[in-house]
Amino acid sequence: MTKKSEQGLSVKKDENFSQWYSEILDKAEVTDLRYNVKGFVVIRPWGAMTIENMYQLYEKALQKKGHKPTFFPVVIPETNFKKEASHVKGFKPEVFWLEKIKGEDRLALRPTSETAMYQMYSLWIRSHRDLPLKLYQRANVFRYETKATRPLIRAREFYWIESHDCFATKEQAEAQVQEDIQTTEQVMHQQFKIPFLPMKRPEWDKFAGATYTVASDVLMPDGKLIQQPSTHLLEQSFAKSFDIKFKDEEGKEKYVWQTCYGPAISRILASVISMHGDNSGLILPFAISPIQTILIPIYNKENKEKTLKEIEKINSALLELGIKSEIDNSEKRPGEKYHCWELKGVPFRLEIGEKELKEKTLTLHIRDLNKREELKISDLKNISKLGKEFDERLGKKAEQFMKNKIIDCKTKSDLKKVLKEKKIARTNFCSISKDGAKCAEVVEKEFNAEVRGILGNKKEKAVGNCVICNKLAKEVVYIGKSY
Amino acid sequence: MTKKSEQGLSVKKDENFSQWYSEILDKAEVTDLRYNVKGFVVIRPWGAMTIENMYQLYEKALQKKGHKPTFFPVVIPETNFKKEASHVKGFKPEVFWLEKIKGEDRLALRPTSETAMYQMYSLWIRSHRDLPLKLYQRANVFRYETKATRPLIRAREFYWIESHDCFATKEQAEAQVQEDIQTTEQVMHQQFKIPFLPMKRPEWDKFAGATYTVASDVLMPDGKLIQQPSTHLLEQSFAKSFDIKFKDEEGKEKYVWQTCYGPAISRILASVISMHGDNSGLILPFAISPIQTILIPIYNKENKEKTLKEIEKINSALLELGIKSEIDNSEKRPGEKYHCWELKGVPFRLEIGEKELKEKTLTLHIRDLNKREELKISDLKNISKLGKEFDERLGKKAEQFMKNKIIDCKTKSDLKKVLKEKKIARTNFCSISKDGAKCAEVVEKEFNAEVRGILGNKKEKAVGNCVICNKLAKEVVYIGKSY
Repeated sequence: MTKKSEQGLSVKKDENFSQWYSEILDKAEVTDLRYNVKGFVVIRPWGAMTIENMYQLYEKALQKKGHKPTFFPVVIPETNFKKEASHVKGFKPEVFWLEKIKGEDRLALRPTSETAMYQMYSLWIRSHRDLPLKLYQRANVFRYETKATRPLIRAREFYWIESHDCFATKEQAEAQVQEDIQTTEQVMHQQFKIPFLPMKRPEWDKFAGATYTVASDVLMPDGKLIQQPSTHLLEQSFAKSFDIKFKDEEGKEKYVWQTCYGPAISRILASVISMHGDNSGLILPFAISPIQTILIPIYNKENKEKTLKEIEKINSALLELGIKSEIDNSEKRPGEKYHCWELKGVPFRLEIGEKELKEKTLTLHIRDLNKREELKISDLKNISKLGKEFDERLGKKAEQFMKNKIIDCKTKSDLKKVLKEKKIARTNFCSISKDGAKCAEVVEKEFNAEVRGILGNKKEKAVGNCVICNKLAKEVVYIGKSY
Repeated sequence: MTKKSEQGLSVKKDENFSQWYSEILDKAEVTDLRYNVKGFVVIRPWGAMTIENMYQLYEKALQKKGHKPTFFPVVIPETNFKKEASHVKGFKPEVFWLEKIKGEDRLALRPTSETAMYQMYSLWIRSHRDLPLKLYQRANVFRYETKATRPLIRAREFYWIESHDCFATKEQAEAQVQEDIQTTEQVMHQQFKIPFLPMKRPEWDKFAGATYTVASDVLMPDGKLIQQPSTHLLEQSFAKSFDIKFKDEEGKEKYVWQTCYGPAISRILASVISMHGDNSGLILPFAISPIQTILIPIYNKENKEKTLKEIEKINSALLELGIKSEIDNSEKRPGEKYHCWELKGVPFRLEIGEKELKEKTLTLHIRDLNKREELKISDLKNISKLGKEFDERLGKKAEQFMKNKIIDCKTKSDLKKVLKEKKIARTNFCSISKDGAKCAEVVEKEFNAEVRGILGNKKEKAVGNCVICNKLAKEVVYIGKSY
């Protein structure tokens, strides 16, 4: 018999989040950290199937908005890389290089694909009829992280999507930035149930090569922010470096206006795990769980055959309803099975034993509420609806969590208190242009925190003075500690 | 107006296959070869969507047979790589290495993942209850090809699936080899309509580290063979190098028995394109075409609105039936649209104009037959059935093509004639063990051809003598030229 200590989690989420996170990855078999290269982890089947489901929902949303998939090479020649000056400056230290092959250009493993894709865009775009061009790729990218790595959060390889769009006008490009924020909202928030702050980053914290960046900041249980999908207005910096031009309706040659957007699926999984999980293990949203209903037969020698036959029928009925359903036919005892699937975060468990067979009911265990209910076999079709309600509960809980952590601050001492309590401060700030950098440095030095930016999808009007320098505040910013 | 020469193919498939192949990749927008790194190509949306559909069908088949998905890191430490002696010998020249990072092991880009995965298997497998372990990953792999590369066929990056299985007994492992051949049959042949010869490779041509290899040989239009998915009986060579042991039911420690299987999706796409395409362009099987029905409205000023409204309704009805359907609403003339979608190989085109609206019919153009038929709007549900028939026709044609190219040979002059005619010889051969290597060398030197192996899924009995050395033949082999 496996000991409880081996199976379950040894710490509580709110007592030691960091250890809880490491343990859950291991015990729910999401990842294995024992791969012998720093910053690279193995994604086990439970993690891989969840990631696959997340990819599919994300890709579907992108395609619905007119994006088409592509695949670009994993290697980028150094020559390309050097074409956009601020981009190379921003990314070069983070690049894995391949050993040089004689007579060929030095090659980088892509840390992001602007410099791979845009040379092709310059070949593909000729006329205004070729615009907008909206392409994305599902691709792993590689960054030589020198900071300490954390599985799924800060890794040297991550699983992402990058979309790269070109437009005829700046207005269209800016509208795309807003569309990208909407995509994050529709997928990460509405489907994965992870609320976020769409933060227009300060000038000193934008993407290398961008005019501005709007990044989604998500709260972790320890009160720190983690950056999730970000979208960038590139304007024409890359278009000029890579010569991406089109002829407008009058035949005049113009540079395109560009944006790019990058949801890192593996990193979003880190937020899903951290936000929804509890002391018994993962809680996966119904929309992305590899198994949505796990069926547990409970039988003795006499009724074994009958029970297994009935459970097969129920499983088939669920599969036919489009539910990802599975029977746990392993040799473990029912209690062990309950434990195992609770750890893995499966939304619904259906128990079928003698009583249930007789009464034509099932015992439905609901993972997030840790509650048992009776479900008539004739009501199996309700599972989808229960799944939606399940996800809505997760969403509400997450939203409430975030709401409670964002605190308005008027003074430096407010700020100090809020940050000490591991919360996020909402406060007046002089500026997120270059002239605000000094105040941001003060925030960093005195509070070990960061000015994350202003809301990127609506204007919040500042009334009053900057919490740091006391000059007239132009902006309402959010300040927090971060990963 | 676009000139015909720019749009269409400039050569006939049977007159210059090689140029036809390059042109079709470009003009059907499958790939773009202008990426500036040798052996790496860009997969454009039409190619990417087809590849995605192929991946999904392949993964579904593997999962149905009990395989689970995983994701392993793209990098493999040199230490791992060296653990299995014949494997390192076989693969080392083909490896891309990363620039060494101080204090860390030298890293290779995976050319295949045995040496990444098996160290983890040794951690995961403890007991007979952990077996069989059947895992796969969807992953790109990288080989430093020194030979001339050809897009999708021999590239430095390819899009593949690798599955790696462990068993308690040799019999189970051998059964897995047969299951893998069946998977190739069920997916590549029955769904992608690419027939193949499952060739148990001669001793001198097996996978580095395997006991034996069964590879699928597929004919190309130029009479050459191309290797498609191969499956390998690894037995215990890697298990011993990576210490993958389990305790059997009596508690005795034993090494596992292993197999691996690797369908390269991008390479199979090369066969799909080559086998089914014609002088008007691609012909994609209904099962994998990104668009299954393309709807073309034909209108004048008066009936434009009515036509577009009706076509929207038809498109929605098709989507609801689960058909991948799209309307071509571009500004091109109908003739140009026909041409474009024929080039891209969409199985069915539906034309809707005044006549069709009046008669409540559609004009259905069938790509492979280049034939127009009438389809009642009330019969839209027949499209799935027509799609199956479409694919069956492609399959039959491909099977007939292969059958006609395999010729029994009794003498060296038969062999010479058959190979000169760009066909495949089926002939008696002394042995595919080491002692047959000399005769294989003769085949290579005299005929510039290869002994590809014997059937891997059934025994063909040799009656007579070896076509080369005239000694008693143990085997019936297939000889051909190859990619």
